[in-house]
Amino acid sequence: MSDIKKVVLAYSGGLDTSVILKWLQETYHCEVVTFTADLGQGEELEPARAKALAAGVKAENIFIDDLREEFCRDYVFPMMRANALYEGLYLLGTAIARPLISKRQIEIAHQVGANAVSHGATGKGNDQVRFELGYYALDPDIKVIAPWREWDLTSRSRLIAFAEEHGIEVTKDKRGEAPFSTDANMLHTSSEGKVLEDPWEETPDYVYSRTVNPEEAPDTPEYITVDFERGDAVAINGEGMSPATILETLNEYGRLHGIGRLDLVENRFVGMKSRGMYETPGGTIYLEAHRGIEQLTLDRGAGHLKDELMPRYAELIYNGMWFSPEREMLQAAIDHSQESVTGTVRLKLYKGSVQTVGRKADVSFNLYSQDVVTFEDDKGIYNQRDAEGFIRLNALRLRLLGQRKRGG
Amino acid sequence: MSDIKKVVLAYSGGLDTSVILKWLQETYHCEVVTFTADLGQGEELEPARAKALAAGVKAENIFIDDLREEFCRDYVFPMMRANALYEGLYLLGTAIARPLISKRQIEIAHQVGANAVSHGATGKGNDQVRFELGYYALDPDIKVIAPWREWDLTSRSRLIAFAEEHGIEVTKDKRGEAPFSTDANMLHTSSEGKVLEDPWEETPDYVYSRTVNPEEAPDTPEYITVDFERGDAVAINGEGMSPATILETLNEYGRLHGIGRLDLVENRFVGMKSRGMYETPGGTIYLEAHRGIEQLTLDRGAGHLKDELMPRYAELIYNGMWFSPEREMLQAAIDHSQESVTGTVRLKLYKGSVQTVGRKADVSFNLYSQDVVTFEDDKGIYNQRDAEGFIRLNALRLRLLGQRKRGG
Amino acid sequence: MSDIKKVVLAYSGGLDTSVILKWLQETYHCEVVTFTADLGQGEELEPARAKALAAGVKAENIFIDDLREEFCRDYVFPMMRANALYEGLYLLGTAIARPLISKRQIEIAHQVGANAVSHGATGKGNDQVRFELGYYALDPDIKVIAPWREWDLTSRSRLIAFAEEHGIEVTKDKRGEAPFSTDANMLHTSSEGKVLEDPWEETPDYVYSRTVNPEEAPDTPEYITVDFERGDAVAINGEGMSPATILETLNEYGRLHGIGRLDLVENRFVGMKSRGMYETPGGTIYLEAHRGIEQLTLDRGAGHLKDELMPRYAELIYNGMWFSPEREMLQAAIDHSQESVTGTVRLKLYKGSVQTVGRKADVSFNLYSQDVVTFEDDKGIYNQRDAEGFIRLNALRLRLLGQRKRGG
Amino acid sequence: MSDIKKVVLAYSGGLDTSVILKWLQETYHCEVVTFTADLGQGEELEPARAKALAAGVKAENIFIDDLREEFCRDYVFPMMRANALYEGLYLLGTAIARPLISKRQIEIAHQVGANAVSHGATGKGNDQVRFELGYYALDPDIKVIAPWREWDLTSRSRLIAFAEEHGIEVTKDKRGEAPFSTDANMLHTSSEGKVLEDPWEETPDYVYSRTVNPEEAPDTPEYITVDFERGDAVAINGEGMSPATILETLNEYGRLHGIGRLDLVENRFVGMKSRGMYETPGGTIYLEAHRGIEQLTLDRGAGHLKDELMPRYAELIYNGMWFSPEREMLQAAIDHSQESVTGTVRLKLYKGSVQTVGRKADVSFNLYSQDVVTFEDDKGIYNQRDAEGFIRLNALRLRLLGQRKRGG
Repeated sequence: MSDIKKVVLAYSGGLDTSVILKWLQETYHCEVVTFTADLGQGEELEPARAKALAAGVKAENIFIDDLREEFCRDYVFPMMRANALYEGLYLLGTAIARPLISKRQIEIAHQVGANAVSHGATGKGNDQVRFELGYYALDPDIKVIAPWREWDLTSRSRLIAFAEEHGIEVTKDKRGEAPFSTDANMLHTSSEGKVLEDPWEETPDYVYSRTVNPEEAPDTPEYITVDFERGDAVAINGEGMSPATILETLNEYGRLHGIGRLDLVENRFVGMKSRGMYETPGGTIYLEAHRGIEQLTLDRGAGHLKDELMPRYAELIYNGMWFSPEREMLQAAIDHSQESVTGTVRLKLYKGSVQTVGRKADVSFNLYSQDVVTFEDDKGIYNQRDAEGFIRLNALRLRLLGQRKRGG
Repeated sequence: MSDIKKVVLAYSGGLDTSVILKWLQETYHCEVVTFTADLGQGEELEPARAKALAAGVKAENIFIDDLREEFCRDYVFPMMRANALYEGLYLLGTAIARPLISKRQIEIAHQVGANAVSHGATGKGNDQVRFELGYYALDPDIKVIAPWREWDLTSRSRLIAFAEEHGIEVTKDKRGEAPFSTDANMLHTSSEGKVLEDPWEETPDYVYSRTVNPEEAPDTPEYITVDFERGDAVAINGEGMSPATILETLNEYGRLHGIGRLDLVENRFVGMKSRGMYETPGGTIYLEAHRGIEQLTLDRGAGHLKDELMPRYAELIYNGMWFSPEREMLQAAIDHSQESVTGTVRLKLYKGSVQTVGRKADVSFNLYSQDVVTFEDDKGIYNQRDAEGFIRLNALRLRLLGQRKRGG
Repeated sequence: MSDIKKVVLAYSGGLDTSVILKWLQETYHCEVVTFTADLGQGEELEPARAKALAAGVKAENIFIDDLREEFCRDYVFPMMRANALYEGLYLLGTAIARPLISKRQIEIAHQVGANAVSHGATGKGNDQVRFELGYYALDPDIKVIAPWREWDLTSRSRLIAFAEEHGIEVTKDKRGEAPFSTDANMLHTSSEGKVLEDPWEETPDYVYSRTVNPEEAPDTPEYITVDFERGDAVAINGEGMSPATILETLNEYGRLHGIGRLDLVENRFVGMKSRGMYETPGGTIYLEAHRGIEQLTLDRGAGHLKDELMPRYAELIYNGMWFSPEREMLQAAIDHSQESVTGTVRLKLYKGSVQTVGRKADVSFNLYSQDVVTFEDDKGIYNQRDAEGFIRLNALRLRLLGQRKRGG
Repeated sequence: MSDIKKVVLAYSGGLDTSVILKWLQETYHCEVVTFTADLGQGEELEPARAKALAAGVKAENIFIDDLREEFCRDYVFPMMRANALYEGLYLLGTAIARPLISKRQIEIAHQVGANAVSHGATGKGNDQVRFELGYYALDPDIKVIAPWREWDLTSRSRLIAFAEEHGIEVTKDKRGEAPFSTDANMLHTSSEGKVLEDPWEETPDYVYSRTVNPEEAPDTPEYITVDFERGDAVAINGEGMSPATILETLNEYGRLHGIGRLDLVENRFVGMKSRGMYETPGGTIYLEAHRGIEQLTLDRGAGHLKDELMPRYAELIYNGMWFSPEREMLQAAIDHSQESVTGTVRLKLYKGSVQTVGRKADVSFNLYSQDVVTFEDDKGIYNQRDAEGFIRLNALRLRLLGQRKRGG
């Protein structure tokens, strides 16, 4: 293990990564570089600096980066262009953040001359896979340290004992029976484990932190508009905003109206089923809005192809394959389809649900034609008699099959 | 046209099909057989008999069939096994009813010795395609009469004039500006045209007929359970029911809680976009419940394959290809996956939304294992160190790609 | 019909299009513009000019264009990047030429102010669809005249009678029982109809015109190399060439060695099966070479995704959907995958078959690593013990399924 | 390791598995049960019995089973129904044999009360994955011993030293530089490693053992017929045969005419590329014949769906996922499509290639209709004017896109 000289740790400043930081120093006798990303998880990040310093990390080895705009612009929005849902329901809030963290960790490793990286994901989950596939894709020679798979701190009590021995602060809530694993960023908050492990038991309301209970949401619906340009949201209620501001604003609407709660049993890449709770307030609104504008501006052939490719695309992101050629190929196809996805969607927010109630687009983007669809006179654009030939030729092979069934 | 001797008309007893009945008699000088299907559309059907008799149809040429159980058992439930959604949102309520009507019409044609069939679908819509692909698949030599594509009653006023000339009753609401086209059956009610044609305008509340406005739904959530066996619902709140009773019962819950309203701009098979309103109260609950039980009982490989096949399957149904070999192939695959989809789902209904909050299954169906997933000791079922090899081999090709990018 | 002022006809100078030219003049009393494309079909095109002039076409209304390079560069090569085969076997030689002809016809129409286009494809085939989908996609208001669907010259004898009445030369071979429909361009020659209509009868050798019978090909194999850059062939035997020269050179090799003959019963877009004969000498070699270089330079994830998308892509081209958004989306994905498809393939040509026998690529393109794959010492790149974890986690869901089958 | 009581070893009697047998006895001090399968690999199997006895295996612990009919009927033929090709070219000859071996090993384990199984596949290849996924799927609690990943006999010389120390016969050819890894069964023979490791070097002719060099094949083509029923071959040249006899007979034809040689660089499931040589004489003929009969008897919709699903299906088999729910789902879809795939194909065999030159089927299976396709009078089955409507409605969305491009 003496070949580990310097390691970049994905560091939150919380109990687990604080223990890891100390454990890395003790186990590998190496220099530890901490990297703390602001992905909009809603926590103060400066305390992480103080803790790292206290743990003996050199000031120049502490990296705290605000990645919110990059996260939204280069990860969340491209994913939303695909209407990505894993297993029909999950908006991939954790999965989409991992590649960005991996990428930044590798960049820092190259910058500081580290030859290893480390993370705090456990050995049963998806996140270890996502982090490490990212690391290896971006630096095939990097060494990866996954403490949860290596150390002997395999129970909560041993971890806490280690912390106390090493003077790491253990807050009261960490001692109790809190959900073992949570994750948060601008797009979502997730929880797994403990009280959620029995999939027949309803998720207790106290597990939710990002949305009001729909029953306590306003009794009056609220309407908002979202403007899209080339597949990405650019304005809310007519006010232009940066990607991160778009998502933060939608998060506020979602929180208020109790939108985006999901209780799910899902299939992990490592082969087991797990039960989780997700809150994706702004993302849920965004997805509905994006589908809404596509309804008007996306061609049927493009839309159906997107729908068929989407499950694979979502699976790739879920499995940590963001930096794979096949994800990039699918992205190229999806992005090509979004060139004319420009217009405005009107949404109704009410007690846990969001629905498209109106969409409009300029004539240079709109494919919906009242003239064509009308039951009234359509001025000759569509000749109803064409339908006969259309049907008869689509039916021809079915008729030949029918003749065969009758014995020729 | 003298080769039309006897024609079986899909007949509702309403204005349009009454005009068609008369027009067929006048135009083809042929015997008309009327077929009226009870698909749970919630209308009295006996008046259709009186009207047919009054129009000169012989008593033995009037067919009124209760197809509700067959519809649910052989069409709706198999489709639900696929979690079918067209364009991500539409539950295919109209599309799934058409093949059954076509099938029964052809059976009657064979029974009464008719050599033609007719329907009241217009020349711009999907339903003409669905009816006629069904006819041709089941009887390749059948003659099809589609009055809306043939006659000159191309405006509403000419149609009404024809009705009045021929003593056909025209109710007041038919004279006004009602939505031009509606369809209803047990699974859903749809509306298109007129007030809905501007996709920026919110659907007026009076267009909805099957659900209360969510804002007027009860202020207290309601919980129900649905039991599944081999992929199909068999009981609600523990009470065993026939397929049609299942759907009717869920419709009642959906109506009460304002569930299943959809405002959509969709792509028709004939090549244009249209805007429609759908209400699918019970079906929306059913789909959520089915996804819920699959979460626990369906293998990941099976589930992901289903998700990838689903858009194609839904498209086939939408396009009227129910009787195609490729729909049957997909059904065979889907049905195979449902053999162990057995268990109970608990749902929360509240102001327009339905959510799975619990699911359970017997040990012989359940694939979720608390023992495996737990962060605590899993008794050796899962060795966390296996994850390293899993990740490293999944990463191998990405590392080779990374090496290449660096120039080998 | 008086709204047809000027029509651009896809004109070969042969009997059929000569009759169409005259028929258009007589039927529509309009100006006819002839367009003759050199797609490498191996015929003199200047006689078409003389014939058009003789038929009264103005000199400035005669267009004869050499499209060979554009055809190869922008149509054949992009298609080959996908390894496109329709129904597993057909290299799409006719289908890929139609969009280019359509595109040029519409360009000429705009240039000369014509408001209509016309072609000589029959009413049962795929080519009418391909031409017309191209026309409509590129000019939604263009008028399309398809004489074979409109006129009454529905038998061979009536067509010839019309020709003779109008002084159109009818060569002797056109009077006999030659295959009714042939098509030729640089990529292939096809024949359908007459002697080929019985699919049990072997295609007579005289139907082939582009390749020697394999039995008469040289008794000694020949080896050639093809160099690829970013997915496209750029050199043969080390000699750099333009796209069209590449294909012409491969055609020569293919002709000599009897490569690329195909006897096929295929499914037409219009719903029937037909039996055809294809000769694609150079294209068959090209496809093998392209697959060969991809073996070395294309990542597995990219390659498998390509393989899954290919049948759809081929179907789109076959059906005339070249100018559709979904074909463009797939092209974007495919092209993205080709960025590193650079290297050299060595092929063996012998009596009707072509096989890759060697491939090599620079280290910056090659993904094959002798060091990794070797059974000998691999210097630690691959740790065989990783395979255990890889297998065990891939097996986990199968084990849980197995436990369930046993009753938990 | 004391928990291994009895282990069932997949045993060929060759050097490697003889060493493994001895190593298992020494390492685990357990009873070893040998299982030798006759999959038509063309070797005497009785010597394996003598060797096992000599190694101290009890007579009742030696299993030698003739699995040839089961292999063809339940594995090869179902796979051929899918026209399965991995990466466009490989007929999966090794991959398809592994699940049957795994299944029989587990059956024997249950019969003799063994709690472990073992195989001789190396730690870099696909076969370890295929064997072990099969084991785990069929017995989730089975213990798996993979000596190549565990022991220290990691070089050829150490293996041979161990053999000599333990009195295991080492034939001369095993001492030289033969290809390290070969596999053979009725369907194919494969070779990898050593002289094949440089993918630029042509495979030397001496590596091939199952086919003559095409250059030495007969100078005269040979014609044969193959009859199919419901998707499976049942007769050759009109003579009914069992599945295994069909394949053996086709192997003879293939051997004689040099058919089925393949030189491939492929992507292994474990993440690397490898170069291999395959000979699949009978399988190559079978696949061509099966495609030939499908051309006449399989509907377009079914055929295109099959083509799209095939790459995934082939990948699943390649990756060892035969016993997965998703492979079974795909098989259900594929098998459904084969119900009418009945008829006769005529093939031409000549110097390395096989081509369909004729196919016929009874009227109750045939979908090809000379009447429909003919350029001559088709008696009204197909109305050419229908094509106009067909094209115009297929074009509608392209026209709307075209209008939009022009700015509405």
